[in-house]
Formats: sequence, C-alpha cells, structure tokens
Amino acid sequence: MTIKDIQNYLGQFFDSVELQGSAEWLISAPAKIETAQKGEVSFVANEKYAKYLSTTEASLVIVHHSVSVDEFSHTTSFLKVSDPYTAFVFLLQKFATPRMIAAKGIAPTAVIGEGVTMGEGVSIGAYAVIGDRCSIGSNAVIAPHVVLLHDVSVGDDTVLFPSVTCYDGTVIGKRVVIHSGSVIGADGFGFAPQKDGSYVKIPQMGIVEIGDDVEIGANATLDRATMGSTVIARGAKIDNLVQIAHNCRIGEDTVIAAQAGISGSVTIGRQCIVGGQAGFAGHLELADGIKVAAQAGISKSFYEPGISLRGYPAQPMRDQLKHEAMLRNLGAMKAKLDRLETELQALKVK
Amino acid sequence: MTIKDIQNYLGQFFDSVELQGSAEWLISAPAKIETAQKGEVSFVANEKYAKYLSTTEASLVIVHHSVSVDEFSHTTSFLKVSDPYTAFVFLLQKFATPRMIAAKGIAPTAVIGEGVTMGEGVSIGAYAVIGDRCSIGSNAVIAPHVVLLHDVSVGDDTVLFPSVTCYDGTVIGKRVVIHSGSVIGADGFGFAPQKDGSYVKIPQMGIVEIGDDVEIGANATLDRATMGSTVIARGAKIDNLVQIAHNCRIGEDTVIAAQAGISGSVTIGRQCIVGGQAGFAGHLELADGIKVAAQAGISKSFYEPGISLRGYPAQPMRDQLKHEAMLRNLGAMKAKLDRLETELQALKVK
Amino acid sequence: MTIKDIQNYLGQFFDSVELQGSAEWLISAPAKIETAQKGEVSFVANEKYAKYLSTTEASLVIVHHSVSVDEFSHTTSFLKVSDPYTAFVFLLQKFATPRMIAAKGIAPTAVIGEGVTMGEGVSIGAYAVIGDRCSIGSNAVIAPHVVLLHDVSVGDDTVLFPSVTCYDGTVIGKRVVIHSGSVIGADGFGFAPQKDGSYVKIPQMGIVEIGDDVEIGANATLDRATMGSTVIARGAKIDNLVQIAHNCRIGEDTVIAAQAGISGSVTIGRQCIVGGQAGFAGHLELADGIKVAAQAGISKSFYEPGISLRGYPAQPMRDQLKHEAMLRNLGAMKAKLDRLETELQALKVK
Repeated sequence: MTIKDIQNYLGQFFDSVELQGSAEWLISAPAKIETAQKGEVSFVANEKYAKYLSTTEASLVIVHHSVSVDEFSHTTSFLKVSDPYTAFVFLLQKFATPRMIAAKGIAPTAVIGEGVTMGEGVSIGAYAVIGDRCSIGSNAVIAPHVVLLHDVSVGDDTVLFPSVTCYDGTVIGKRVVIHSGSVIGADGFGFAPQKDGSYVKIPQMGIVEIGDDVEIGANATLDRATMGSTVIARGAKIDNLVQIAHNCRIGEDTVIAAQAGISGSVTIGRQCIVGGQAGFAGHLELADGIKVAAQAGISKSFYEPGISLRGYPAQPMRDQLKHEAMLRNLGAMKAKLDRLETELQALKVK
Repeated sequence: MTIKDIQNYLGQFFDSVELQGSAEWLISAPAKIETAQKGEVSFVANEKYAKYLSTTEASLVIVHHSVSVDEFSHTTSFLKVSDPYTAFVFLLQKFATPRMIAAKGIAPTAVIGEGVTMGEGVSIGAYAVIGDRCSIGSNAVIAPHVVLLHDVSVGDDTVLFPSVTCYDGTVIGKRVVIHSGSVIGADGFGFAPQKDGSYVKIPQMGIVEIGDDVEIGANATLDRATMGSTVIARGAKIDNLVQIAHNCRIGEDTVIAAQAGISGSVTIGRQCIVGGQAGFAGHLELADGIKVAAQAGISKSFYEPGISLRGYPAQPMRDQLKHEAMLRNLGAMKAKLDRLETELQALKVK
Repeated sequence: MTIKDIQNYLGQFFDSVELQGSAEWLISAPAKIETAQKGEVSFVANEKYAKYLSTTEASLVIVHHSVSVDEFSHTTSFLKVSDPYTAFVFLLQKFATPRMIAAKGIAPTAVIGEGVTMGEGVSIGAYAVIGDRCSIGSNAVIAPHVVLLHDVSVGDDTVLFPSVTCYDGTVIGKRVVIHSGSVIGADGFGFAPQKDGSYVKIPQMGIVEIGDDVEIGANATLDRATMGSTVIARGAKIDNLVQIAHNCRIGEDTVIAAQAGISGSVTIGRQCIVGGQAGFAGHLELADGIKVAAQAGISKSFYEPGISLRGYPAQPMRDQLKHEAMLRNLGAMKAKLDRLETELQALKVK
C-alpha cells in the first residue's frame, strides 16, 4: 500500500495525520527502527530511539507531531500523529497476516456431544472434543485438540488455541483469546485435613467465568470455584504460566504477568498491574489500579487505589525503596557504629 | 432431600448430629453462608462467619455443638456436629453432580497398543493414545486426549483428565486424580558439561511412581529419575504448575501448593506443607511435618520434624520473624545511632 | 556385555581406559553406587561417594586413574578413566532402551496439511496435526497429539514429545528435543494501554527460532517476537515450566533451570547458567558465562562475563554474600548499639 493509504487508514483513529514526504511510496511491511529497510514502516515514540531518525533506512516513520524532521534523509517520509506508539500498533494490525488455526466449519474428526448449539461461521479443528450441551458463539474458532467438557459456553469471536482444556461449566465471553495448553476450570486445591494426617477432597462445584475481551497466555491454570465462580472480568490480560486459584476475582482490564500466582479467594481490583512471579497469600484484596512489582509477595490486603507495592512481605513502593536504601547502607551503619565505639573507648580512658 | 435425610447421611460420619428446627424442609443445594438462599444448606466453622448466623437466608446451617442458636430466625434450621467443616465437605460430596469426562468403555477413536491389559468398567475417551503393554485398573477413567507412552500402569479408580501425558514406565496407584496438561515422567534435567562448554545429555532411565490417593493439579511436571524412581507417596497433594525434578521423594500426605519447585534428589517427609512458589535447592532433605512458607527458598536440609520455615535462605519461622522484625526496626537503629553520635560529640566537646 | 566390551566402548571416548579386575564378567545394567548389585556397573566421581568403593556389590565401577583400588573386594572390577562421570554418562547412553513414541512412518490418523515436505525416515504419531507448508527433517519424530500450525520447520533428528504445540512460523533446528506440553511461539504479552484503561492487542508478527541441539523441558512457554525472532541459540537447555517472553535471545549452551522467567527483549549470553525460579526484568542483557542463583531477581544488565549473581535485586555473589552476612549480624549490631548507649549514659552521668 502507499503512504497515502496508510495516512487514510490512521485517519480513522486520529484527528490529524500529518504527512511530511512522499504520499506515493509503497510500503510492504512494518519493522523495528534499528533494522527497517526500504519499503518498510517503523515508528519512534521514545526519546531513546530518536537517534535512529537520521539514520534509518525505513521509507516511512510514524512520529509525534512535535518531532521536527526537516533535517532528515530524502529516503524517509514521516507521518505525524498524537500517539505514534498506538498508531504503529494499528498498523501492525493492518499488516498482520491471519493465522490459520482451523478451517471454517467443523472438521470431520471433531467430536461434538449431544445438545451442542453453535452460532454462524464457527470453526472447529481436527480432533477437538466438544462435550454435551456446550454452546459455541458465532465465528468462534476452536483449534485442533481443544477439549471442552460438558456445559461449556464460548462467546462470539472467541479463539481457543490448540490443546486448551475447559472443564465442565466454564463460561467464556466474546472476543476472548486463550493460548495453547491453558487449563480453565480444573478443581481448586481444596482438601480437608483429617485427624490421621490424611486429607478428604473438598468437591469443587463452582465454575470459571471469563469476561469479554480477556486474553489468557499459554499453559496458564485458572481453577474453578468451590461454590460460585472464579471470575476474570472483562478486558483482563493473563500471561503464560499464571496460576489463578479457586474463588478469585480479577478485575476489569487488570494485567497479570507470567508466572504470577494468585492464591484462593483473592480479589484484585480494576486496572491493576501484577508483575511476573509475584505471589499472593489467600483471602486478600487489592484496590483498583494497584501495581505489584515482579517477585513481590503480597501477604495482606491493600485498600488504597493506585499505589505501588514491592518486596516481601510487600509494602508500598516508597516505604520499600526507603527500606532497601537503608539495607544497602548497612555497611556504613556498621562502620559508624565501630567508629563510635572507638571514640567512646577513647573518652572513657581519659 | 429433607433435613432429616441430611441428618441421617451425616450420621454415618459423626456420633451425634443434633437437629434444631424442622426435619421436613427441603434442601436442594449447598452455598456459602453469605449468599445462601431458601432451600440451601451452609455451614459456620469459623468465628469470623458467626455474624452471618442471625442474618443468613439458608434453610439449614451446619454448626458446632457448642453454638447456641435459640435466638435465630424461624427460617433457618440447624444441625450440630463436632466438626461442621468436615460435615459440610461430606455434604458437598453428596450434592456434587458427577463430571462426565469419558463414557464407559473404550471410545472407537482411542488408540490401544499391543499387550494392553484392562480391568472392568474402564473408560477411555476419544483420541486417547495408550502405548504398548500399558495396564489400566478397574473403573479407571482416561479422558480424551490423554497420551500414555508404553509400559504405563494406572491403578483402579484413577482419573486422568484431558491431555495428561505419562511417559514410558510411569506407575500410578489407585484413586489417583491427575488434572489436565500435567506431564508425568518427562526426562530429568541432566546434562554433563564438556570442556568446550557444550553439554552431553545424561539419559534419564528411571521412572515416576505415584502412590494411591494422590491428587496432582493442572500443568504440573514430575520428572522421571535418572536411575530408579521419582516417588510421590500415598496421599500427597500436588497443586497446579508445580515442578518435581528427577529423583525426588515426596512423603505421604504431603501438600505442595502451586508453582513450588523441588530440585533434583530432594526428599520431603510425611505430612509436610509446602507453600506456593517455594523453591528447593537440590539434594536436600526435610523431616516429617515441616511447613514451608510461600516463596521461601530452602537451601539446606532440616531434620527437626514439624518446624516451620520461611524466608530466603529459609530458616525456622521464629528466627526468621525475629530477623524480619529487626529489619523493620532498622530505621530506629539508625536514628539511635545518629543520636548517640550527637551525644558523643557533645561529650567530647565538653 | 562383558567388561571387555565396555572397555572397548569407552575407548572411543578416552585415550586410556585401564582395567583392574576381570575382563570377562557380564554387565547387564547401570546403577547407583549405593544400590548397585552383582552384574551392574556404577561409578565414583565425587569424594563423597568414595566410601562406597569398599562396600559396593557392583561388578564394575568406573573411577578416576588416580584412585587406588588394590584393597577392595574380589567381587568388583574397575575401569579407570580421566573423567568417570562423563564415562558413565556414555555408558548410560549405551544401556538406555529406546523410548517408543511413534512408529516409523505417518500414522493414518495424522492430519497433514497442504504443501508439507518431509525428509526420510520421519515418524508422525496418531492424531498429530501438521499445518500447511510445514517442513519436517529426516528422521524427525513427531509424537502423537503434537500440533504444528502452518509454516513450521522441524530439523533432522528432532523429537517433539506428545502434545507439544508450535505456532505458525516456528523454526526448529536439528537434534532438538522438546518435551510434552511445551508451547512454542504463542503470542508475546503485548498490549497498548488506552486512555480509558483498556488495552489494544499488539499483533505479534515475529516467530521463535530454536537452534540445533537445544533441549526444552515440559510445559515451558517460549513466545514469538513482536517483529523478528525470539531466539534460543544452539545447545541451550531450557527446563520445565520456564517462561521466555517475546524478543528474547538465549545464548549458545546456556542452561535455564525450571520455572525461571525471562521477560521481554532480554539477551542472555553464551554458557550462562540460570537457577530455578530466577526472574528477569525486561530489556536487559547478561554477558557470557554469567551464573544466576535460584530465585534471584535480575533488575539490570550485567556486562562482566563469568560473574555470579544472587539476591533481589541481584548483585554479584561476593557483594551479596557480604550483604547477607551483615544482615545475619544485625542482632550483634543491635546489641553493640545498646551497649554503647549504656556506656554513653554512664559517661554523661559522671
């Protein structure tokens, strides 16, 4: 497509898309600014990368309105917008070639249970197994080797990648993406200790509910509730290998990075960000907008919205950084203590 | 069923089940005390929830004998037992509707190798692949998409959920439950470093042995031994995404929470409890009944039974809490040090 | 085979393989020195196990040239080499019975897409699904239930265990081993935050490239790059449940232990060793040969080759150990501070 085409496309998302350079050049692919070649489009949204503006071989670079590009090469044109990062994301979406995960229609080897209902345009891949009374929304894509136990509901336009497993009763919203190997709705880890030291299994009778526009990474595990629902609210993003235990509630647009572990009955608010490998003790609550640093250990509830937490046991960022500074300073403290001791000895001798 | 039916059912497990209220009311489902409605049964085992006793709309609440319920509503009846929590777990088992994971018999699309033996009442789901010389015990349930390599042995009444993989030689006891995506018996992570910095793979020739009544969560990984067996003893409970490396031995009725990682050749005693995301260095030993806090890092053996460990490197709880208190107190120490310095200066000037 | 056979076999790898004892005894299996029986071969490479030399029932023990074995039993023979550990690894390889994961040829139930090319001697197991335009190298083994999306390339002699999933475009080298449940090439975790707090998905258009002789454990996740490639270089070894995020580069012969998590755009050098559960912040770099302790949290780049890192935030081992020693010493510091205070009070009173 031409730069003019790109300008028009971005015009859907931005009030002003200002062209500096040629409207006619052809653009065939997006690329990183460091490696972009002729015929490719890239972007600069961060000061750190501004140095590449004068050396890039990209034919087109998306920049902020405020960037002055007069001095740069005749081999690069520019489109100026208010948010070049998001503009480039939209461009990536335009250039992305669709991934073929299952042909339209139901593969002849898919096993479809009794009483299954389906919308229009559904794709179900080879060897998928759909349990009794499942419901699959319009244009949903069920990849090869997905297994849905009975009574699972999948919303419109949702995509389940190969080898996703959903246990009975799982409810999945619209436009959800679940990557390969994730297990939704396995039994919560609940056992009642007996006097002889053994355990009796507590039946896990609830389900998992996943809201619209959620994305879940690969090999994550989201356990069903003991009673009621484990809830992943609309727009939440859950990374690979994350563990969400029974009865949790993850708020709207909350992001949880890889390998984080959320113990049972934890409630996390809206628009929170949880770092990788962070861990949560059970039965606690985080207010909206809280940020949790990677590897932090959250041992109690925090009710103040928007704060940042860090460390083990986690505390508000400012306190924790002060604490860490003091720890780094221990050597100086020790030296001072030794000096005072010497001085005190000297005084006593006098 | 009626409250009388429930009283009779619990009578199998408890010497005394005392009714206060109506024996005739109909009960259709269990529920949490906070949300229970008419026709539902709940329980109170914990002081924290006692406040709900006077406001719940549950038709039946299971409580301890010691609870006095005279003042409460006419819409709630009570059954009194010595352990209301366990009583409720038994009730959940009664109300639990069976999950349909594979029809009785062998699905026509299951692939059964040569020399496979099976007990009575076995279920093998669609597309399961059973290797040569496997043995499947009576009433075992092998869900769709399970893969057993050759010479795997599965005990009576064991349930393997969809997409469990067992490598060759795995031995699984009776009444075991393994949730979806778990991989049993993959190669231990063993490589011999060579002079040029590359590695030669050390063949992993052992197996994994899983005792009776073990439950293993989703997407866990239990590696085979280099020689001999990695052992999960009877009654152990392993949560989602746990890693058990080669040559480990996990003791009877030991519980390991999600995302914990046990390095090679670790021996954990009976009735231990390991918190989520805890990690173990290799070749060490824990005595029976030891409790490991979440995210702890165990770097050496602990031989005293029943102690609690915490922190990194982990130490006995009391020492570690004292240590953490001292850390929290660093600010005060620093202030005192500064004050002493000032006072000392004042003395010197005199 | 006889001890003579073993001597000849090891002669391929070592200049000198010196026999002390009988060349004719029959050896049928390898075993650990503690448990080895008549007819078995074991080894001692570590001082710690030297005590077993006089008591073992093994018929053959591999030891270092320097070990004097004159005083030991007439029931044990010895082969002396320069590296008994590696010699034993080669012996394990000789004794290892091949694991049957898929019969030669293409299982009739495997689904092969259009335009797929294959070398000689390929094995593809039951229910494997191979997308359009994939290429499978000679003697590669694709186990049952593996799913390759389109345009995946698998090198010669590579083995994919059951239920491995490779997304579109994945490139895998020769002699690679990937264990069950691992997901290669799922979307990187990239979302652009919008003003209303929601996120727009950033298309992940790159791929994963895996070099020759790599081994990847079970249930690991390696995400595709946003643009370009996530690279696992030749000879790297990745353990179970490891997370490698988008755009990472893992160097040649680098070893990453279980449950470690590498955030996006991290570059790790050659011959590094990363301990279990270690975590990396994004966009940083480690030089060649760096060792990272288990559970460490790497928060910045380290450019000095060969150093060891430990702690959170991680710092060079020596600094961190000094720091930890100081922490352990806090009680003594506090006691000294209290003593100085008392002494100072006494001086002031005077």
